[in-house]
Amino acid sequence: MKAARLHEYGKPLVLEDVPVPDIQPDDVLVQVKAGGMCRSDVQLMDGYFRKYADIPTPITMGHEITGIVHKIGGVVPKAAGLREGDHVVVAPGWGDGTCRHCLVGNTHICPNVRWPGFGPYGGFSEFLPVPARYVIKVDKRLDFEELAPLTDAGLTPYRGIKKLRDAGALGPNRVMGVFGIGGLGAYAVQYAKLLGGGATVVAFARNLDKLAVAKEYGVDHAIAIKGKSAADIAKELGKATGQSDLDAVIDCTGAPEMVQLAFALLSISGHYADVGLVGDRIDIPLFPRVSREQTLHGSYWGNNTDLTEVMALAAQGKIRHTIKPIKFEQLNENLELLRAGEIVGRAVMTF
Amino acid sequence: MKAARLHEYGKPLVLEDVPVPDIQPDDVLVQVKAGGMCRSDVQLMDGYFRKYADIPTPITMGHEITGIVHKIGGVVPKAAGLREGDHVVVAPGWGDGTCRHCLVGNTHICPNVRWPGFGPYGGFSEFLPVPARYVIKVDKRLDFEELAPLTDAGLTPYRGIKKLRDAGALGPNRVMGVFGIGGLGAYAVQYAKLLGGGATVVAFARNLDKLAVAKEYGVDHAIAIKGKSAADIAKELGKATGQSDLDAVIDCTGAPEMVQLAFALLSISGHYADVGLVGDRIDIPLFPRVSREQTLHGSYWGNNTDLTEVMALAAQGKIRHTIKPIKFEQLNENLELLRAGEIVGRAVMTF
Amino acid sequence: MKAARLHEYGKPLVLEDVPVPDIQPDDVLVQVKAGGMCRSDVQLMDGYFRKYADIPTPITMGHEITGIVHKIGGVVPKAAGLREGDHVVVAPGWGDGTCRHCLVGNTHICPNVRWPGFGPYGGFSEFLPVPARYVIKVDKRLDFEELAPLTDAGLTPYRGIKKLRDAGALGPNRVMGVFGIGGLGAYAVQYAKLLGGGATVVAFARNLDKLAVAKEYGVDHAIAIKGKSAADIAKELGKATGQSDLDAVIDCTGAPEMVQLAFALLSISGHYADVGLVGDRIDIPLFPRVSREQTLHGSYWGNNTDLTEVMALAAQGKIRHTIKPIKFEQLNENLELLRAGEIVGRAVMTF
Amino acid sequence: MKAARLHEYGKPLVLEDVPVPDIQPDDVLVQVKAGGMCRSDVQLMDGYFRKYADIPTPITMGHEITGIVHKIGGVVPKAAGLREGDHVVVAPGWGDGTCRHCLVGNTHICPNVRWPGFGPYGGFSEFLPVPARYVIKVDKRLDFEELAPLTDAGLTPYRGIKKLRDAGALGPNRVMGVFGIGGLGAYAVQYAKLLGGGATVVAFARNLDKLAVAKEYGVDHAIAIKGKSAADIAKELGKATGQSDLDAVIDCTGAPEMVQLAFALLSISGHYADVGLVGDRIDIPLFPRVSREQTLHGSYWGNNTDLTEVMALAAQGKIRHTIKPIKFEQLNENLELLRAGEIVGRAVMTF
Repeated sequence: MKAARLHEYGKPLVLEDVPVPDIQPDDVLVQVKAGGMCRSDVQLMDGYFRKYADIPTPITMGHEITGIVHKIGGVVPKAAGLREGDHVVVAPGWGDGTCRHCLVGNTHICPNVRWPGFGPYGGFSEFLPVPARYVIKVDKRLDFEELAPLTDAGLTPYRGIKKLRDAGALGPNRVMGVFGIGGLGAYAVQYAKLLGGGATVVAFARNLDKLAVAKEYGVDHAIAIKGKSAADIAKELGKATGQSDLDAVIDCTGAPEMVQLAFALLSISGHYADVGLVGDRIDIPLFPRVSREQTLHGSYWGNNTDLTEVMALAAQGKIRHTIKPIKFEQLNENLELLRAGEIVGRAVMTF
Repeated sequence: MKAARLHEYGKPLVLEDVPVPDIQPDDVLVQVKAGGMCRSDVQLMDGYFRKYADIPTPITMGHEITGIVHKIGGVVPKAAGLREGDHVVVAPGWGDGTCRHCLVGNTHICPNVRWPGFGPYGGFSEFLPVPARYVIKVDKRLDFEELAPLTDAGLTPYRGIKKLRDAGALGPNRVMGVFGIGGLGAYAVQYAKLLGGGATVVAFARNLDKLAVAKEYGVDHAIAIKGKSAADIAKELGKATGQSDLDAVIDCTGAPEMVQLAFALLSISGHYADVGLVGDRIDIPLFPRVSREQTLHGSYWGNNTDLTEVMALAAQGKIRHTIKPIKFEQLNENLELLRAGEIVGRAVMTF
Repeated sequence: MKAARLHEYGKPLVLEDVPVPDIQPDDVLVQVKAGGMCRSDVQLMDGYFRKYADIPTPITMGHEITGIVHKIGGVVPKAAGLREGDHVVVAPGWGDGTCRHCLVGNTHICPNVRWPGFGPYGGFSEFLPVPARYVIKVDKRLDFEELAPLTDAGLTPYRGIKKLRDAGALGPNRVMGVFGIGGLGAYAVQYAKLLGGGATVVAFARNLDKLAVAKEYGVDHAIAIKGKSAADIAKELGKATGQSDLDAVIDCTGAPEMVQLAFALLSISGHYADVGLVGDRIDIPLFPRVSREQTLHGSYWGNNTDLTEVMALAAQGKIRHTIKPIKFEQLNENLELLRAGEIVGRAVMTF
Repeated sequence: MKAARLHEYGKPLVLEDVPVPDIQPDDVLVQVKAGGMCRSDVQLMDGYFRKYADIPTPITMGHEITGIVHKIGGVVPKAAGLREGDHVVVAPGWGDGTCRHCLVGNTHICPNVRWPGFGPYGGFSEFLPVPARYVIKVDKRLDFEELAPLTDAGLTPYRGIKKLRDAGALGPNRVMGVFGIGGLGAYAVQYAKLLGGGATVVAFARNLDKLAVAKEYGVDHAIAIKGKSAADIAKELGKATGQSDLDAVIDCTGAPEMVQLAFALLSISGHYADVGLVGDRIDIPLFPRVSREQTLHGSYWGNNTDLTEVMALAAQGKIRHTIKPIKFEQLNENLELLRAGEIVGRAVMTF
């Protein structure tokens, strides 16, 4: 089968032919129909994660995966309700099933977690084995190219915004900011409206094309931040919404200067959730966090429950997509564009 | 009346005679019987807060206040149930009563908040006017010298630990760390046991005398951190408790290196609450916060509800104190000791 | 001034001329511009509440009140920001300001609560005194006849549905039922969509005209229940939504048979919130509540925070109304129609 | 092997010899060392559950199970960390692993749940097969006779009280009632102190011997209710605690008159959790539930997380037991005593 694998950190993927993998008795073999491309693919190649987990090569990349059930392991329980030919998405974050995080369904933060696309098997290949617990059956009328990004770009901000909502940060007289309108942000603005309970939603980004996407997807206001001070942005926010600070922020970038901007704009008792990993540093003043009783939430990808909810929204036609379809052979050139921040929406590979 | 006032930032307090202040119709005049001394008094003198709020001098310092109702304003409602001679503590954080924080009782984070001890009136004087809503009647059998510190040192960690508990971070199979066993930490360790629901509580501090206080107040383990690396401390923690990370942290210091140590030890899905203000910088890696789904809570002082609960614990005899009683005339010398970190427990002034 | 007062339980209101009331120093005098009519007005006349609180006559009824600030008491704080001529709505549930419920803003469940319209002063009169804390300033462009019902019919289900949302009962793959589409239900269906985060919303009522209102306001499905068994209704629900039980219910009736129907349809871990008071009995099997881990929430009217949020939604144009405008002189005849359940939407009185 | 089985509803158990059961590849075979006896065993025999689930006979009863791992199925994952000879408790409520309740660990409310002791296999036999996911390894120093009841009597009130705590109903100035001091109640009073965060705990029961157990386990007050009116009990409560209502109730009985008493005593915004199943009817007035914003929580047994936490408390020596040890041969006579309410604490069978 075809597979795009990282053989050496810092080098392009090698597109090659490899054997179709075996499955364990509790796995299913998924035939990949579409694979989304993520900024963290670039970071994986570039070694961003090596200080936290030095994954041995070769790595089959690609973690936004959808496809068809090709084979079912012998001990997969009938309760799972799976048949060959079913359309599925692959939930990320395969836990050991026994830790206290797994016990409440947060398999994605299991200390022994495995991630597709960050090891021997991934979505940039024609087949991969997946533990049966981590495939979610979907309606056959849904489009594979749209399903793929829903497993990360369309999942990660959903979980983050749920954290903001559950913390009580959203509601009719609140203003929420979405920082960064790339692959994740284009979904984030939609969830902000869906879960906001009447909150005013404002998009913040450097790139005007990306802000245009946010506007199309229904944000109340869009603010270009390139070259502006926090004070100027606060003024602009005040003019647009009647208040010059933000009650809630979902940061889809994680860039150090965005973190600082977000906290500079954050209101008393404001909640900030980061789902972005562009940088690797939080460097902010302490006193305002304390005296203004602010909360910082780290939110990572999503679990099966989150993905099931996202799939329910997709089935109801409530999610819109900005997809750039590409072919397997174009993976490396699009990884370059991704590194340069030049892809609007999400690039999705098919064979 | 006697008052200790800051006339110039960076200089000692001036102990002087000033007129007894007037009250507004909705105030009561409180005759101060004891006033606790806080590290933030030193910081106020040193100008720590000036970049956030440049309070004009003269400032009557002292914000841990207890005393006797001396006079009651004309429109104080009968429902308040106050009489001359009542023993009271003074709740800090007097809000405007109309903002959205005041509407839910969080008057202490009102954008128009006033603080006793950070303006013309404070506890280091014989009398001060207090809005009737902010005095809480207490049992006359309670000792003024013990009541005073309960309005900040014994209130602030209570609110912080409630945030940890309400976030689900405490329970029978969790390990909680208390960082810094100064004025606040000596209360924090007790609340950790009271609210922990069976959590193992570990004290961390540089000073061995302070760790001894923590042990006396019931922590399960105490770890001296001076000169040790995070990795070594993790090992020591592992030996003591069976797990080498912390599910919850209350940081009573806020010192930059303590923040870093606390996050280095924080578990997956761990919660960190800061109530300390020794430093003014959070500078930590981003990725582990996100991938481990950690939460940082700023928690500031407390509101009337919190103080009412602390008073209920005090009335039940569930709080122990380490008090260093001093006289009004000894304020300046004890501020020096406080700056040097040489006071174990809480210094409390009486006239 | 004109006032409609209950002089004897069980008798019609007496429309008469009475003196304009005085105000206390912390009150404002509100000139009533519109007053909504509520089923509980009928219940008050009929003595429903007498076993709980036997209010002495004469009673000036009318508790959905909006109008203009006519006079401001001498000690009303400037922070309140009130001026003569301001348009305001009157928040119900005036607390004593000192109990533990008042301390967190739940003044409407204060043990010493006072209600406008349930004592000497109410909305069916040209003027009434209101404690300044309980008037909320509103945009002058909003229509008085639409503002009035937002203080109860449009407030009560908002609070109830917030309880369902905060309990985690709403979301993309959940089905929520709204029981009873009268004065409250017509708002409830709108809030169900606004706060539901993608939940499917189903209206249940006996009256087809009322179900038509629910459909117009955006429910996903409407089910007529008259003469049908719980089992038949469950089947109909299953056909409409794909699941034959309800994850969340807001009951705007409180009729004993509706309570039973709602619980018969309630899912595992389902949440039921009652805001209706048509009956006064809960009589249901115990075992399914326990084994299915269901929760029953009583939810009563709303507090200042809730009303502020409803006003924010109104200002954004997000609330639609079904108003039957009537004149002061028509109060008694419309109370009769209300008793008979023959008013679609909300009757609102002006002078 | 020996097994005590129900062959006919309403008749005593038949103590007989049956073959040792086979296991599935993902099961372990547990050799039972102790089995607790529960009031619901009597109810099962008496047909209480038949209208909800008519379980076919023969039924091997006994659902409080602890023992030793005797054999391990071929596909049990190594991550489970199980070895032959391990001491384990059996978590009840075996879910299908795929429903939305299972996804968050609430396997005990799975619509396809299986219960040991309510079908072919149970604890009143020498061996039973258990899915590996539902055995929890315990310290070998713990006593089997004490471990058994922790899987229901000592688990069920733990979950119920967690619900009260997480709802914010417990704390220093709150009064909590424990209704019924039988098998569950004797644990409930201990958890009330452990999780109450300083709440005053009051036991209510008819039987003075049982109240004595509650006192021994640390309740602040114990009130005998036999033959007293709700009003008299309220007075007694007021004298004991200073307030005549209860902010939180855990009802370990579920008897109709206890439900009514509990709600008669429940405070404004009070929370009531039922874990008892003596009766099968809730019949209470509606209006006070609504106007006082009370909440009723059904709470059922517990999940793996709950049981893990209970085991952590047991390992710390924080749970005390009142055990009546009996032999397998004495099962039927003790079921009779249980029906009559004449067992103080928990009867536990060994072979």
